[in-house]
Amino acid sequence: MLQELFTPSVQHALDLAGIFVFAISGALLAVRKNFDVFGIAVLAEVTGLGGGLFRDLVIGAVPPAAFTDLGYFVMPLVAAVLVFFLHPEVERIQGSVNVFDAAGLGLFAVTGTTKAHEYGLGLTASATLGLATAVGGGVLRDVLANEVPSLLRWDRDLYAVPAIVGATMVVLFIRFDVLNGLTSGIAALTAFLVRLLAMRFHWRAPRAWNRRSAASEPGNEGFGKATA
Amino acid sequence: MLQELFTPSVQHALDLAGIFVFAISGALLAVRKNFDVFGIAVLAEVTGLGGGLFRDLVIGAVPPAAFTDLGYFVMPLVAAVLVFFLHPEVERIQGSVNVFDAAGLGLFAVTGTTKAHEYGLGLTASATLGLATAVGGGVLRDVLANEVPSLLRWDRDLYAVPAIVGATMVVLFIRFDVLNGLTSGIAALTAFLVRLLAMRFHWRAPRAWNRRSAASEPGNEGFGKATA
Amino acid sequence: MLQELFTPSVQHALDLAGIFVFAISGALLAVRKNFDVFGIAVLAEVTGLGGGLFRDLVIGAVPPAAFTDLGYFVMPLVAAVLVFFLHPEVERIQGSVNVFDAAGLGLFAVTGTTKAHEYGLGLTASATLGLATAVGGGVLRDVLANEVPSLLRWDRDLYAVPAIVGATMVVLFIRFDVLNGLTSGIAALTAFLVRLLAMRFHWRAPRAWNRRSAASEPGNEGFGKATA
Repeated sequence: MLQELFTPSVQHALDLAGIFVFAISGALLAVRKNFDVFGIAVLAEVTGLGGGLFRDLVIGAVPPAAFTDLGYFVMPLVAAVLVFFLHPEVERIQGSVNVFDAAGLGLFAVTGTTKAHEYGLGLTASATLGLATAVGGGVLRDVLANEVPSLLRWDRDLYAVPAIVGATMVVLFIRFDVLNGLTSGIAALTAFLVRLLAMRFHWRAPRAWNRRSAASEPGNEGFGKATA
Repeated sequence: MLQELFTPSVQHALDLAGIFVFAISGALLAVRKNFDVFGIAVLAEVTGLGGGLFRDLVIGAVPPAAFTDLGYFVMPLVAAVLVFFLHPEVERIQGSVNVFDAAGLGLFAVTGTTKAHEYGLGLTASATLGLATAVGGGVLRDVLANEVPSLLRWDRDLYAVPAIVGATMVVLFIRFDVLNGLTSGIAALTAFLVRLLAMRFHWRAPRAWNRRSAASEPGNEGFGKATA
Repeated sequence: MLQELFTPSVQHALDLAGIFVFAISGALLAVRKNFDVFGIAVLAEVTGLGGGLFRDLVIGAVPPAAFTDLGYFVMPLVAAVLVFFLHPEVERIQGSVNVFDAAGLGLFAVTGTTKAHEYGLGLTASATLGLATAVGGGVLRDVLANEVPSLLRWDRDLYAVPAIVGATMVVLFIRFDVLNGLTSGIAALTAFLVRLLAMRFHWRAPRAWNRRSAASEPGNEGFGKATA
């Protein structure tokens, strides 16, 4: 009974919501980079759908869901139009957007891991692909915008860890045969909360030990201010 | 009878021509970026074949045409050799190159959309993939050259719109069951002409409304001169 | 008998070694770019597995080996941990790392070409994909780190050529029906030695002729010092 809390249509609605908030982050970056309206739409689509697209190519689920579900395609366009007209307002509620982004992160980590396992991948590989599903869109967004992926930068609050937590919970649930709608929801919720805490308390991951030699390397200019 | 104007071998020749002109644009960027001869060849191959490769991976047409048709592989090498020895001359006829690039854009939008539909994608997804086929190589080119994709920049003449026009015409023809060699040619030609007009009259797409908050954002430095 | 020198388990061990040394180069770049520990792990994974992942997607070998062999996943993590704690020491032995990287390059060119041919690709396509397997991880590494791929830069010692030599030898061996463990080893060894010689004598590939017009182009700033 409890499992039914998390039915396919709820799942689909949550998927669309996750795509939408990811797309918002892509559209906002496009505006900051001064892209035109098509650039905004492209970056919204790539950010919203890129992670799932990569997952589907890896597991051989072709054509990928991004190209078979019209709703998946439309949500980023809605996000792009919204940001096009209202981006100052959207930026003003950046905090709320980040909360939704955290929800998308948790959800995609869980659904990505689950789908990878359904396609026959092992537990470790499934969790890895769940992580890739959750963070892949953002990495593609930053690569297309010619920026260092915010996932990789030390001066950003933890982003991979919440997704890893959610994906790991799912594979443990699979391992002990208790994965269902309820436990899936718990995993997504946990990832969501870890991300919220990371943002609230600015949790960051350590950089390499004895960085001195690295700090004097060329190629670090972009990070100079942050290091000082 | 008229359909036969656009037979498979004509199609193949047009495909090769499209790959060639796209490859020229990749090789020219490689020369400007000061890459060596292998860098020129790699960027020519990626630009010429990248869009079709992405399309084939998405629709599950593996191995992709880029790896099964020797001509597809050779054309970018020819373009690379030509640019290697004659790049000042090629740049002097940049205008002509742009005309061919416009032809490639129209053609790839049409063939990409058609192939996607043949592999079972819906109409919207097919048009989207047609657009991706047409612009994908150029985006990969710019990403590998570590530049902001020219597709996304507001200070470039319309590039996505002509491809969207061509792809949309194809799906309308499919919808009304009148897609054939003749109508395919009309769609490609229309996209081609729209692109020529966009270049001739410097049509550009709008950027987001109320850009003031964005203009003062960090991360815009690279566009500073263009904005002023 | 001689063929058995190069048995599957030896091959697997060499694969793991190649992944490991490629991952080291990714982790070192991540440290230089000041990424956090997760950024180091991600860049190690991408560099170690990216080339093979691309090859497997192109030939339709899904899920790719990167996601089915736990050892493939673990090696980059080991490399990341090592570099995290010991990167000054690892950098001090950069010369040794480069030797291993050369070994990985030769090995991946050979195994990539062989696997592509087993999946039905033609000889030219197989060699091309062998090259892509060998250099793909490094290209992805540089793209994610927001740098111009070192593969494409003229001021780096030959990197593509050794891989092309190894891949070409393999397709010649296939063509004359003498591919076996021994000849595979010879091809990998030859590629390895060519790369060592290229590093020892700083062999470089030529840039385009008559570069003057290119040198005065914008977009060359990053290469200014090297050109002077």
